[in-house]
Amino acid sequence: MKTVREAQDAILERVGQLSGEVGIEEVAIGESLGRVLAEDISSNRNHPPYDISAMDGYALLYDDIKNATKDEPVLLDVIDDIRAGTMPNAVVSTGKVSRIMTGAPTPEGCDTVIRVEDTSGTDNGEKVKILLPPKKGSNIRSMGENLRAGEQVLSAGTTIGTGEVGILAMVKRAMVPVYKRPRVAILSTGDELEAIDEPFDINKIPDANSYSIMAEMQAIGVEPTLLGIARDTQEELLEKLREGMDYDVLIVSGGVAVGHHDFVRPSLKEIGVEMHFWRVALRPGHPFAFGTASDDRSGEGRSGGTIVFGLPGNPVSSMVCTSQFIVPAIRKMEGHAALFRATYKARLTAPVKDRMGRLHFMRVTVGKGADGAVEVTSTGPQGSGILMSMVEADGLMVVPAEADALEAGAEVTVQSLDPYGFQPETGF
Amino acid sequence: MKTVREAQDAILERVGQLSGEVGIEEVAIGESLGRVLAEDISSNRNHPPYDISAMDGYALLYDDIKNATKDEPVLLDVIDDIRAGTMPNAVVSTGKVSRIMTGAPTPEGCDTVIRVEDTSGTDNGEKVKILLPPKKGSNIRSMGENLRAGEQVLSAGTTIGTGEVGILAMVKRAMVPVYKRPRVAILSTGDELEAIDEPFDINKIPDANSYSIMAEMQAIGVEPTLLGIARDTQEELLEKLREGMDYDVLIVSGGVAVGHHDFVRPSLKEIGVEMHFWRVALRPGHPFAFGTASDDRSGEGRSGGTIVFGLPGNPVSSMVCTSQFIVPAIRKMEGHAALFRATYKARLTAPVKDRMGRLHFMRVTVGKGADGAVEVTSTGPQGSGILMSMVEADGLMVVPAEADALEAGAEVTVQSLDPYGFQPETGF
Repeated sequence: MKTVREAQDAILERVGQLSGEVGIEEVAIGESLGRVLAEDISSNRNHPPYDISAMDGYALLYDDIKNATKDEPVLLDVIDDIRAGTMPNAVVSTGKVSRIMTGAPTPEGCDTVIRVEDTSGTDNGEKVKILLPPKKGSNIRSMGENLRAGEQVLSAGTTIGTGEVGILAMVKRAMVPVYKRPRVAILSTGDELEAIDEPFDINKIPDANSYSIMAEMQAIGVEPTLLGIARDTQEELLEKLREGMDYDVLIVSGGVAVGHHDFVRPSLKEIGVEMHFWRVALRPGHPFAFGTASDDRSGEGRSGGTIVFGLPGNPVSSMVCTSQFIVPAIRKMEGHAALFRATYKARLTAPVKDRMGRLHFMRVTVGKGADGAVEVTSTGPQGSGILMSMVEADGLMVVPAEADALEAGAEVTVQSLDPYGFQPETGF
Repeated sequence: MKTVREAQDAILERVGQLSGEVGIEEVAIGESLGRVLAEDISSNRNHPPYDISAMDGYALLYDDIKNATKDEPVLLDVIDDIRAGTMPNAVVSTGKVSRIMTGAPTPEGCDTVIRVEDTSGTDNGEKVKILLPPKKGSNIRSMGENLRAGEQVLSAGTTIGTGEVGILAMVKRAMVPVYKRPRVAILSTGDELEAIDEPFDINKIPDANSYSIMAEMQAIGVEPTLLGIARDTQEELLEKLREGMDYDVLIVSGGVAVGHHDFVRPSLKEIGVEMHFWRVALRPGHPFAFGTASDDRSGEGRSGGTIVFGLPGNPVSSMVCTSQFIVPAIRKMEGHAALFRATYKARLTAPVKDRMGRLHFMRVTVGKGADGAVEVTSTGPQGSGILMSMVEADGLMVVPAEADALEAGAEVTVQSLDPYGFQPETGF
């Protein structure tokens, strides 16, 4: 049985093919948020393209107005009116100023811009009174101050956030080169499952996993295909699994335990999927399986076949395994550097007992102690069927495999349940 | 000039109409992640529906096997084979056991399930050797242990996360009642702007705001419509602004400053938008405007007209204003309880100077000190045109309006730039 770390390593060393050169696509800038840049991006221009005014005001010579006061304002001739988007028509010189708008190019000759609030215009707009002097050089933004032509502004491997989208627009990248996202399919298995659109049957268990795993994928930006429920016959299972081979990633929920009616293992073997392991020492989350299809699809832009994950049927187990193993794998395929859910340190409020031998992700609520420290408390029973605990919990406390108990007051590591926060290391 | 808090209050007291009863819609469960539940949700069933086995194994009477050991195993007759999704055919009694799969209903008579790993079957499957006794009652999950029929499982006002999606599937809610999302339009204004699909013109400034604001909206799950760029003519502006009145929220970027060529203010007035304020004491972010259209659209499921926000043209200012004012307003419309970006405390590494009079959101990078404390450092020049600072920064340090400097070592409040983290209070 592999440890969590061993299982993560075994998975991550086998995925990554989508982030190679064959795994790049161009998307519209409006679809680039959250994607990973596949190329360095350089600025196509100086920004500002020349010196511009930072204010609505007047471009002038500082020496003309350095002694201006409210009581003794300086009166100057307005010789031009420079809007944003137009070029100056006149050169500023002693006694002569140009009215200027925010963002408009400053005229030749000027060394300072005074904001309109510190002036008083005349009725016909031909003259302006300067009521106090700004600092010399004020309110002028220098050419290239924000972006310099040719300068690299974003590097390959950057996750595109809102600021990056703004920069891409600033350098006019309407189409953005990003790493491809894997196409993911989710298959639930088992005669006991009731599909969401099937009538109520007391003897069945609703298929929650298809949807909670779908949501985990959506939270990382992947829109998975639900293949539905495969019943426990070899024929139906083979058909659905073969359908799954059309995707980069196939997630099979349920049916991987050892047992008489286990069709999934032999069926995966029959369609050419090599399983690398079936069991990982974590709780909840046992059994969890990982395999790879052997067929080479390099012609389709992939150097390997479908990646197959087998999730336990219990809903909490399947969510925890998805977070620990599948999400990091998909983020690696997408080119992200930060693969693992964010962790933080906290103080345990009440003692917990635990069975040794497996890393345990215990559902906890998070609060603040009297001293302001972050505190965590178990949500109570930790049964892997108690999906409500995933709703109640704010985090997963990581209880080491070697621990059989944790004391009140212990410093513990907590994995965030925020599906958007990631870090480069597991943190435990 | 309003303070940031006053401006937020003025906005938030005027929005909220979408979360009334008229603002509810049903969406497919696969589209519910991140939405806000508009109704309480109760369980439609007991889960498990009856006592079920937690393991693949054998259902039996504890008294039969309490003394079993590897050396002296207990041999029992297998009288039934209960798969998940089928019902038991036989009653367990002394000496008689039923083979049972994970999730299958436990048969009448049994009080314990032993996992298959602690047994050894006979070749023909008619008998089983029990090698060690489990605890009495082990591996049986009780009826209703996870969800009880009629019990409320989720309450109106809950933001739907991945666990909630699982619960909704568990109680068979294929369609989910959620608060409507506002329809948002973004309009950039100004002759100086160059659209992303227009050829390079050294005299123009690329329209970055449309895209960075779009990304801010996408990060909170809203897909805005870009109305493009309105040039500085009354006709074009009026046409675009009227188009914007078809949306719940219109965001106008640029053109709200005081100045000669300012068309936006009179144009908004002309189409019946009442502006409530134009200026807020924050940096970067000045000027920022807020108004409401007067027409009553209750027939379309709204009790008020379009909400209008006027953003400054500088890219950093427009992003900061979006975070402080527009995002909380939209989240309120959507029914969220946590409206404001998450904040945290940190220690300042190096002194900063500041102009007093306005709350300042200073771009900072975040790191860890030698003692493990969270430390922040200014990204450097804080000009509102330096969009790269939003890429380099990890957070916005909140410098109070009354402060003209902060010392190294000071405890400061930092607003996260993570576009997914929210809290109920501003935190500053």
